[in-house]
Amino acid sequence: MSEAPHAYDVYQARRQRLRERCAAAGDAAAVVSRPANIRYLTGTAPERAALLLGVHDPGADVLLCAVAPGARPEEGRPDEALRLQLLDGPGADPAVAAATLALRQDRRPVAVEEHDLTVARHRAMASAAPGIALTDLGGAVEQLRYVKDEEEISCLRIAAEITDQALGELLESILVGRTERHLALELERRLIDHGADGPAFASSVGTGPNAGLARHQPTDRRVEEGDFLTVSLGAVYRGYRCAIGRTFVIGTTPADWQVELYDLVFAAQRAGREALTPGAACRDVDRAARQVLTGAGYTEGLAPVTGHGVGLENVEDPQIAPAAMGKLDARVPVTVEPGVHLPGRGGVRIDDTLVVRPEADGGPELLTITTKELLAL
Amino acid sequence: MSEAPHAYDVYQARRQRLRERCAAAGDAAAVVSRPANIRYLTGTAPERAALLLGVHDPGADVLLCAVAPGARPEEGRPDEALRLQLLDGPGADPAVAAATLALRQDRRPVAVEEHDLTVARHRAMASAAPGIALTDLGGAVEQLRYVKDEEEISCLRIAAEITDQALGELLESILVGRTERHLALELERRLIDHGADGPAFASSVGTGPNAGLARHQPTDRRVEEGDFLTVSLGAVYRGYRCAIGRTFVIGTTPADWQVELYDLVFAAQRAGREALTPGAACRDVDRAARQVLTGAGYTEGLAPVTGHGVGLENVEDPQIAPAAMGKLDARVPVTVEPGVHLPGRGGVRIDDTLVVRPEADGGPELLTITTKELLAL
Repeated sequence: MSEAPHAYDVYQARRQRLRERCAAAGDAAAVVSRPANIRYLTGTAPERAALLLGVHDPGADVLLCAVAPGARPEEGRPDEALRLQLLDGPGADPAVAAATLALRQDRRPVAVEEHDLTVARHRAMASAAPGIALTDLGGAVEQLRYVKDEEEISCLRIAAEITDQALGELLESILVGRTERHLALELERRLIDHGADGPAFASSVGTGPNAGLARHQPTDRRVEEGDFLTVSLGAVYRGYRCAIGRTFVIGTTPADWQVELYDLVFAAQRAGREALTPGAACRDVDRAARQVLTGAGYTEGLAPVTGHGVGLENVEDPQIAPAAMGKLDARVPVTVEPGVHLPGRGGVRIDDTLVVRPEADGGPELLTITTKELLAL
Repeated sequence: MSEAPHAYDVYQARRQRLRERCAAAGDAAAVVSRPANIRYLTGTAPERAALLLGVHDPGADVLLCAVAPGARPEEGRPDEALRLQLLDGPGADPAVAAATLALRQDRRPVAVEEHDLTVARHRAMASAAPGIALTDLGGAVEQLRYVKDEEEISCLRIAAEITDQALGELLESILVGRTERHLALELERRLIDHGADGPAFASSVGTGPNAGLARHQPTDRRVEEGDFLTVSLGAVYRGYRCAIGRTFVIGTTPADWQVELYDLVFAAQRAGREALTPGAACRDVDRAARQVLTGAGYTEGLAPVTGHGVGLENVEDPQIAPAAMGKLDARVPVTVEPGVHLPGRGGVRIDDTLVVRPEADGGPELLTITTKELLAL
């Protein structure tokens, strides 16, 4: 689990693309502080770190960290071409140290991630590097991350395989009488059994009235005959995260209202999946799924988003929502996760992770392949 | 688990103290965005929320949230005296909505948490509330949180009891042959079995050469006869977190080097615990523990901090480190967690959570009571 996911030159190529973007903006250096962005650009993301990028001199790139990187498997290993600088002192802020280093190298202006840095840290950087203008790097690295390369997608594919395996094993076990908390913990154990770096997020298990709730926090409620059971989990593999959500009925043949509700949410989720094409507007994907639910009269309590991008973070661009701007592109991984919850009765959520692909390549690639039939367990 | 930890008037009293601090600073309102601070002041901390505090009018306090609070047990319930306002739209930023509301109420200036808000969010607040000066609330709420009341300490005491129970059960089970990952997951399951809201942090289990590493990420290494085994875990109870760390030897009678190293770290940890008195300088507590290790020639690779405060966050003020400013006070909970790690051989860490108490009250109150004898398991 601890090798870097790519040949190191991949990271150098990514930093080069960021260099070009910064050069175009007239910046002499950039300080990247957001962990997922650091990992994308270096192959590692130690706990407290910042990347100083020399816009006109690749040799000047420095990863400043409070802790030596690579100590934790899930951190990956740093790009060998990258200079490392360990900070001393528990209080030292790597972003501030990077600003100081930029000052010493007389690199100005310096672009920083204003959407990541707190006002207090930004001020500390400014006073550590007097006379250096701090500009806004904005979402430049996130934009580079938006379309994944095939190596990233293969990490996502493995994360999804692990997730399907963990879920598949749970479905073979006895569920009646076990609590939501224990089922959620068992899922996380199985994710690790199958080679995950860890769970991508706290696994959610909801039974009976809790079924169908988005990101429900598992309780001590026990699974009962006739319940809907909604499960949501995801693995991290080499930093890449995926999500799957499924809803089942327990024990008996489902009641009519359960079948109807399931078929409806399934139809909405399929409509969303089928709308995933390069160039599609994200709001149109949301509408495709949402109108199936609203058309059936479910207007109350629908989730505000139908899905979102996924990769080195659980939630990335794009957002698939009514007011979302932006379009899909090939090789953009997204979730499609509509749901309906009826207070007091429970509900249905179905969540897949897919990769947008052109029609010519067979259309959207489904990564989470666990069946979406309504299983009675 | 879902009731508020205190009578609601506790939260009103806390907000009143913050009001007085803001009034003295000349602020007309404050926007609290840091989740632990929101929970401290309201009894709840929904996922995306901000608290608008009316400095001159308690009735004007509003908790703005993207999701209705109290959905998740570990969130607690909101103070009933508090007005709630749900935001619409997935993108809505509660802090920005709070600034807009302050503008509508013509409350100026507004103090904000510059150590929590990103530069981008701060700018969004400023443009949402044109003409309202945004001042810095700084660590005002953290300062209120520094000394705990007895109800907070009783939550910490329960969190520590749960943690001791989970660890005690693990020690009774067979350890040889099991992997670090599985032991860590089992600890988390047992924390929940005993009533924790969840684990306070990812449980760490290190065996053999991994023993004694701070916050070691569990691997697939299996426990072997003769290993040192270091375990670190903590429960969350009603939002309050604690930590315990213990080191054991597996199977055989310990080797001489193991006994010597253990006795040394134990002596350092005891010296740190005994230095915990109201008014003691934090750096002196660090020195008391550290000099035992350095005096024995262990100068390389010691942790930069000997301990830290703990409460609604895993790591709070004070910091117990060589360069730490500040003094201890009665009713301040802290960890004391020195360790020594010998590369390739392993090491020892011992971590307790204690509450600083005056001599007259019996001195420091040990919350994590699992034995610190060197057990051979």
